[in-house]
Amino acid sequence: MKLWGGRFSGKQDEFMRKFNDSFSFDQRLYAVDIQGSIAYANALSNAGLLGKDELANIIKGLLCIKKEFDQGVFEPGFEDEDIHTAIERRLTELIGEAAGKLHTGRSRNDQVALDLRLYAIIVIEQVHDALTALQTAIIKKAEVNLEIIMPGYTHLQPAQPILFSHWLMSYFWMFDRDRDRLTDCKRRTAVSPLGAGALAGNPFLIDRAQLAEELGMPSVTLNSMDAVSDRDFVAELLFTIALISIHISRLAEDVIIYSNPSFGYLSIDEMYTTGSSLMPQKRNPDSLELARGKTGRAISSLVNLLVILKGLPSTYNKDLQEDKEPLFDSADTILLTLPVITGVVDTMQPHPDLMAANLDETMLATDMADYLVEQGLPFRQAHQIVGQVVRLAEERQVGFSTLPLPDLQRISAYFGPDVKEIFDFQRSVSKRSGIGGTAPETVVQQIAVAKQKINDLPK
Amino acid sequence: MKLWGGRFSGKQDEFMRKFNDSFSFDQRLYAVDIQGSIAYANALSNAGLLGKDELANIIKGLLCIKKEFDQGVFEPGFEDEDIHTAIERRLTELIGEAAGKLHTGRSRNDQVALDLRLYAIIVIEQVHDALTALQTAIIKKAEVNLEIIMPGYTHLQPAQPILFSHWLMSYFWMFDRDRDRLTDCKRRTAVSPLGAGALAGNPFLIDRAQLAEELGMPSVTLNSMDAVSDRDFVAELLFTIALISIHISRLAEDVIIYSNPSFGYLSIDEMYTTGSSLMPQKRNPDSLELARGKTGRAISSLVNLLVILKGLPSTYNKDLQEDKEPLFDSADTILLTLPVITGVVDTMQPHPDLMAANLDETMLATDMADYLVEQGLPFRQAHQIVGQVVRLAEERQVGFSTLPLPDLQRISAYFGPDVKEIFDFQRSVSKRSGIGGTAPETVVQQIAVAKQKINDLPK
Amino acid sequence: MKLWGGRFSGKQDEFMRKFNDSFSFDQRLYAVDIQGSIAYANALSNAGLLGKDELANIIKGLLCIKKEFDQGVFEPGFEDEDIHTAIERRLTELIGEAAGKLHTGRSRNDQVALDLRLYAIIVIEQVHDALTALQTAIIKKAEVNLEIIMPGYTHLQPAQPILFSHWLMSYFWMFDRDRDRLTDCKRRTAVSPLGAGALAGNPFLIDRAQLAEELGMPSVTLNSMDAVSDRDFVAELLFTIALISIHISRLAEDVIIYSNPSFGYLSIDEMYTTGSSLMPQKRNPDSLELARGKTGRAISSLVNLLVILKGLPSTYNKDLQEDKEPLFDSADTILLTLPVITGVVDTMQPHPDLMAANLDETMLATDMADYLVEQGLPFRQAHQIVGQVVRLAEERQVGFSTLPLPDLQRISAYFGPDVKEIFDFQRSVSKRSGIGGTAPETVVQQIAVAKQKINDLPK
Amino acid sequence: MKLWGGRFSGKQDEFMRKFNDSFSFDQRLYAVDIQGSIAYANALSNAGLLGKDELANIIKGLLCIKKEFDQGVFEPGFEDEDIHTAIERRLTELIGEAAGKLHTGRSRNDQVALDLRLYAIIVIEQVHDALTALQTAIIKKAEVNLEIIMPGYTHLQPAQPILFSHWLMSYFWMFDRDRDRLTDCKRRTAVSPLGAGALAGNPFLIDRAQLAEELGMPSVTLNSMDAVSDRDFVAELLFTIALISIHISRLAEDVIIYSNPSFGYLSIDEMYTTGSSLMPQKRNPDSLELARGKTGRAISSLVNLLVILKGLPSTYNKDLQEDKEPLFDSADTILLTLPVITGVVDTMQPHPDLMAANLDETMLATDMADYLVEQGLPFRQAHQIVGQVVRLAEERQVGFSTLPLPDLQRISAYFGPDVKEIFDFQRSVSKRSGIGGTAPETVVQQIAVAKQKINDLPK
Repeated sequence: MKLWGGRFSGKQDEFMRKFNDSFSFDQRLYAVDIQGSIAYANALSNAGLLGKDELANIIKGLLCIKKEFDQGVFEPGFEDEDIHTAIERRLTELIGEAAGKLHTGRSRNDQVALDLRLYAIIVIEQVHDALTALQTAIIKKAEVNLEIIMPGYTHLQPAQPILFSHWLMSYFWMFDRDRDRLTDCKRRTAVSPLGAGALAGNPFLIDRAQLAEELGMPSVTLNSMDAVSDRDFVAELLFTIALISIHISRLAEDVIIYSNPSFGYLSIDEMYTTGSSLMPQKRNPDSLELARGKTGRAISSLVNLLVILKGLPSTYNKDLQEDKEPLFDSADTILLTLPVITGVVDTMQPHPDLMAANLDETMLATDMADYLVEQGLPFRQAHQIVGQVVRLAEERQVGFSTLPLPDLQRISAYFGPDVKEIFDFQRSVSKRSGIGGTAPETVVQQIAVAKQKINDLPK
Repeated sequence: MKLWGGRFSGKQDEFMRKFNDSFSFDQRLYAVDIQGSIAYANALSNAGLLGKDELANIIKGLLCIKKEFDQGVFEPGFEDEDIHTAIERRLTELIGEAAGKLHTGRSRNDQVALDLRLYAIIVIEQVHDALTALQTAIIKKAEVNLEIIMPGYTHLQPAQPILFSHWLMSYFWMFDRDRDRLTDCKRRTAVSPLGAGALAGNPFLIDRAQLAEELGMPSVTLNSMDAVSDRDFVAELLFTIALISIHISRLAEDVIIYSNPSFGYLSIDEMYTTGSSLMPQKRNPDSLELARGKTGRAISSLVNLLVILKGLPSTYNKDLQEDKEPLFDSADTILLTLPVITGVVDTMQPHPDLMAANLDETMLATDMADYLVEQGLPFRQAHQIVGQVVRLAEERQVGFSTLPLPDLQRISAYFGPDVKEIFDFQRSVSKRSGIGGTAPETVVQQIAVAKQKINDLPK
Repeated sequence: MKLWGGRFSGKQDEFMRKFNDSFSFDQRLYAVDIQGSIAYANALSNAGLLGKDELANIIKGLLCIKKEFDQGVFEPGFEDEDIHTAIERRLTELIGEAAGKLHTGRSRNDQVALDLRLYAIIVIEQVHDALTALQTAIIKKAEVNLEIIMPGYTHLQPAQPILFSHWLMSYFWMFDRDRDRLTDCKRRTAVSPLGAGALAGNPFLIDRAQLAEELGMPSVTLNSMDAVSDRDFVAELLFTIALISIHISRLAEDVIIYSNPSFGYLSIDEMYTTGSSLMPQKRNPDSLELARGKTGRAISSLVNLLVILKGLPSTYNKDLQEDKEPLFDSADTILLTLPVITGVVDTMQPHPDLMAANLDETMLATDMADYLVEQGLPFRQAHQIVGQVVRLAEERQVGFSTLPLPDLQRISAYFGPDVKEIFDFQRSVSKRSGIGGTAPETVVQQIAVAKQKINDLPK
Repeated sequence: MKLWGGRFSGKQDEFMRKFNDSFSFDQRLYAVDIQGSIAYANALSNAGLLGKDELANIIKGLLCIKKEFDQGVFEPGFEDEDIHTAIERRLTELIGEAAGKLHTGRSRNDQVALDLRLYAIIVIEQVHDALTALQTAIIKKAEVNLEIIMPGYTHLQPAQPILFSHWLMSYFWMFDRDRDRLTDCKRRTAVSPLGAGALAGNPFLIDRAQLAEELGMPSVTLNSMDAVSDRDFVAELLFTIALISIHISRLAEDVIIYSNPSFGYLSIDEMYTTGSSLMPQKRNPDSLELARGKTGRAISSLVNLLVILKGLPSTYNKDLQEDKEPLFDSADTILLTLPVITGVVDTMQPHPDLMAANLDETMLATDMADYLVEQGLPFRQAHQIVGQVVRLAEERQVGFSTLPLPDLQRISAYFGPDVKEIFDFQRSVSKRSGIGGTAPETVVQQIAVAKQKINDLPK
């Protein structure tokens, strides 16, 4: 039984059936579909379109179907083209023709729009929680390794000494922005389209606002034609997930490089590595490589939906059936990736000795320039002078700190004996004590703010 | 003079120079760069790192440079690799070595991050205003054509009668969500990174919060390593523009189809059409086709940045120099597209007669099913029955409304003589009077809400 | 049993296991994996590394495993992280430790590279055949409807009369280029990487060329490091499929528009349409809308792989595990879409009467300009003059052909009484008789060339 | 003067003009446009539509315009919406109304399709040559550093020793496939669309085959409707450039990592690095970072065009005007990137000592397993055993080669005293002597084949 059979003679091409049907993937909407149908049944009843007994039967039938899905015993029929058809078909089997009343004034167009919004809200909440768990792991790891100094890089070239905890916390804020974006996205998702009908609105006097409230949605769509084809909320969620994935890919890149033995700054726990089928000594950071690779997937799911939407005529077009798989794939992928990365962060071991071994004195060149600034030189000249000092040390193939004072003074008279004080990585780090800087006490404050943000979340 | 010359011997490959330099495109940041530099000079002065006279000279010099750019007389030097270098070079020419003090504790990394944020805020505000203008045109056109009935489509097949004004207003809400997203994006953009230095923070005691306030930014970044490489705000803006572009592409598709003579629902004003070099009779909707085509551009600018960011190591990497052109191109394109589309909407003429001519009675099939529901039939059966009625009319090749009552009653005993009342497009439209429906009084309310939203905007 | 367990203590995070394992999707490579393993076993035997009995046992075991998969009875083990592990584990169960000899000198890196190439070749051949079937349907439909005249559009505005068969054949050539690209792609795919080892090559004296020959591959990779990470062939195939999908989307767009009742040029067979859950009269071209929507998917699979590859370090990285799902999804999707579209083309019905009804005389404006050219006017002036004629008819709201000769002559003295001859759509079409033009005899030739191309394909 | 003005009253919105006009970017097509026009003029003359003098005048005028462009003195008119209009306008100024004859039977639709093909062919040839130069630099650098051993990585973890020359040559083959793809793309590009008219073909008896030949194109399009909207060749070229860019991004990633001082395998010449505005010691690999970042651009240009093409109705639509900028940007970018990367490769210095210092004995674990295989153990068991050996060394924190034989023999009786021979990186490398392996004499052969390929190119 198709929902729309009346006008049709009934033949369907076998390829077409497979091409058209979405039950194989949209069945995961069963719980939200049933949630929406119960709310709609209540609305119909309030509007006098369903008798009390009919309402009770419909709800009982729907809950029974939900249980069948929950327990994995729902039996799909050959003609169940989608989850909506499947549930209506089964409801008819269970309660008879009264099932057909449930769809009074409702179209699959507003029904599926609602389902997808309800589903997206669940995804948003789950991703939000998985992000919070990762942020918590970051804070914890940063706190217990607060004062380890490591080489900081720009352009992957040694730049300035920084705290390991500062490096790690830099990711906290990326994920914090992601959570912020999720919250905005949720607000725009929690708007009920139910009552938009196929495109023109609902001719029966159902109370859309009350319906929305029952579904936990603060507001309703204000134009039925827009309501049935708006997929902005899916695009926005896919974009948000893509950015999360990109942030993870950057963390992965750092950790992959830092755990290469020539760096050796970090060990990834064996649990998050795998070996080689050929090379017995191998322990590869597969978890992080996969997480990095899966960024392609997240970006492409977003591209997929944007391409679908481009140039689509008004209201519902069947192209929109293709909105679900990218959402499901992006959601599943990020909800698997986040706990893995959380585990990696939670279990990874920093190696302060190897970090220290890679601290090069030339990373203090900026401190030397700052020293000259304090002696009164404009920064740009100080920079030029220190550049010459670095070159000199390089030409002589000696350490930057070992150049005798007279040699320095030949380059600039501003150098005094106290210039030696700058050759201290601890001092360099401590001086960056403005808000957001890498000085230990500043990082302590940073972590305190971060903890507060997490603690302030509604439990 | 390169800013970083001290350590270098000075040769540079000619291709490399062209490859590396960004002045040709980043010079448009001059005003925000100077705005940021003036604020930073004040901060340095407050921190005791600039004397009063030095401060005055620096500000005077910077304003002079701004004027040179404003008037188009700024002369770039051969070694001006970017806008920051160009301005510093020129400032040195104008005020001498004190210019070199401006860069105390500041890196191009935090400087360019600030510039881009200031620039993005301007773009956000301009796009916001251009959207508002388009929304205003939509409201105006809907109001003066409030009660025109036209065929409504789903799947580009006749579905139900709707109001032309309802169709048009469906776009209002898309652009309204876009404005909402812009507002969220702006909040995340207006965060000052100045003071993050190259990656480790600022060792001089500048007041970052006050600096941010001077720049109109309510908050500051809390991790210097994140601050210099965060381009989330660019990605978010590019995404928001891509969605705007997609909404435009859908409107364009509708109008292109509706202005084809087989439809004839709309005429596009000649100003927004062009002709053919070969075919003298042609008047093509080039404005709308271009707008639709430019969606590729908006989506691809987003993809560009996301690909750049994927897998990038921590902090600043030169890859990030590539963040500007997609932003500039997306901003320029949407800021040109929006007024064109506003003009198209403002000047297009609906043709109620041709709309009416294309209203087919079968678009009232749902009303017939609703009629049967009112007689007590469950909707699903009503749907099946009307399907058979449609088939019968089709087989007989007669109009849907001309089927004699007895024939209808042979299909279902629920049909009575009053079924004839449903053959009234006006009635069909009027019945969809739930919130967001296409009934005239409901559309009036919809427009009222829309007008209020626009009127409530801060002027 | 992991293949790489020796060095590991054995714990693995549960999320990590799920994240890392690929058996759920790469099991579809079983047949090509076994094909590759049999060839490799032969090569090992030829190199004296496997005894005759061992070889026989291995091959027997592998064929048994293949049968288990073919029959759907293969039982995966909990530790089967991928198809290669699963088969090696099972082979060990079946034939004992000799199974461990099969992997002498072979890594999963060269093994999976081979598998994917063998699989891609099968996909290429299947897509090629599905394209040929579609092209054959196009030719057939064009031949039986050879001389129907329809309005030709540019910018979706009436342009010039054309033959329906010419319109349809325009898609033949798009798909022909696609087949050509597939052929090139196949040549670059059929290059054997087996023998590249993990990255450094194979230390045992296996004959790579003979191995390749046994696998039906004309050549071997020449650099082992490149061999294990080259996924160009996947990218190229994904691109080719994306273009096919785009060509289908254009055909779909045309047919969707032409089957809207305001055009009515084409009926889509009921088998390829579906109805509405709400509106009983609906018959929607879902097949074509889905085909158009799935273009997003094809483009995004390509984007997915390109993003994965961007910035990846040399040789194999686990990110590459993500290469399979986009390939599988793209292949499955296009191999389902093509037969559906073939069915749509095969069964669609053109309506010459409605095409004729939409032929507007102004579509002959170019013919009028050509007429003036034949009288000796430069084309550009002829174009200007006819433009004025069109305007005049428009102002008078009369048919283009009904303007009296004197009125025409007032615009240009070049008009003579024979200008009336141009008001003949048949004549207009027939005049475009240069190669590739829409004249009936030219289209006959076009179809003849097309048929020859298909007939010349190796059966 | 617009080409299409006759029917129009003449007003045009200012935004619309700017939105619609393409002269600012398509003027770079001037040379190919003129080349096409000269060929078309000859064809018109051969068909008797141009007198000898007219032909001579047209060609003389066109060559004069070409010279004006070549010398940068061409003065665009306010109404020059595109390069075609500009040239026709100027030609009319130069030779009078005969200029209007040039466009007899030709539309901008077939004209621009031709121009773009001619331009694409030039791009293909230039990119091809730039690739050849890069490949030549690779060969040269590999040859002079043939036998340097370096650590080979998979998953960025130490894998097996390889030759530096082998690593470098791995990129040769990527670029070789790119050249191969360019060649295929060129074949599909060199097909003349001239004579397709606006969409229906050419009504004048011009000889399309001869026209194509004059333009250096071996064949002509066979369907005029396809001819005017086929942009497959642009998509294919954009894809090919995107893959080149990805290959460069991988090389860049390797070199960036290898030139980090913790590795120190390579020095990038100062010419291809830049410094920091803040940190005086810095020398950053900007050339490579930019090249990696520009991959986003190449991928996005491809996405741009694919999105434009998706769902476009038949024949020419103005959306296609957007095809040019992605092509121009991709071409310009890759033609600047390739010489820079060629320069980087040409001038970079390998550091064999630091490579040697990072060779770890565990990279010989596979050789130890191979040793056991030679003693008769199945490889999989050998792998397990060596895994235990590696663990033992790790637990004892001693070098892998220093484990006493008895300890090894306690793990496996297959170990004999000759196992010590495997601790020789040179030997390990030399054993990989199968085709494509890293053994020195094999790499010599690889280079010989590569040189032959380059030498065989037509000069």
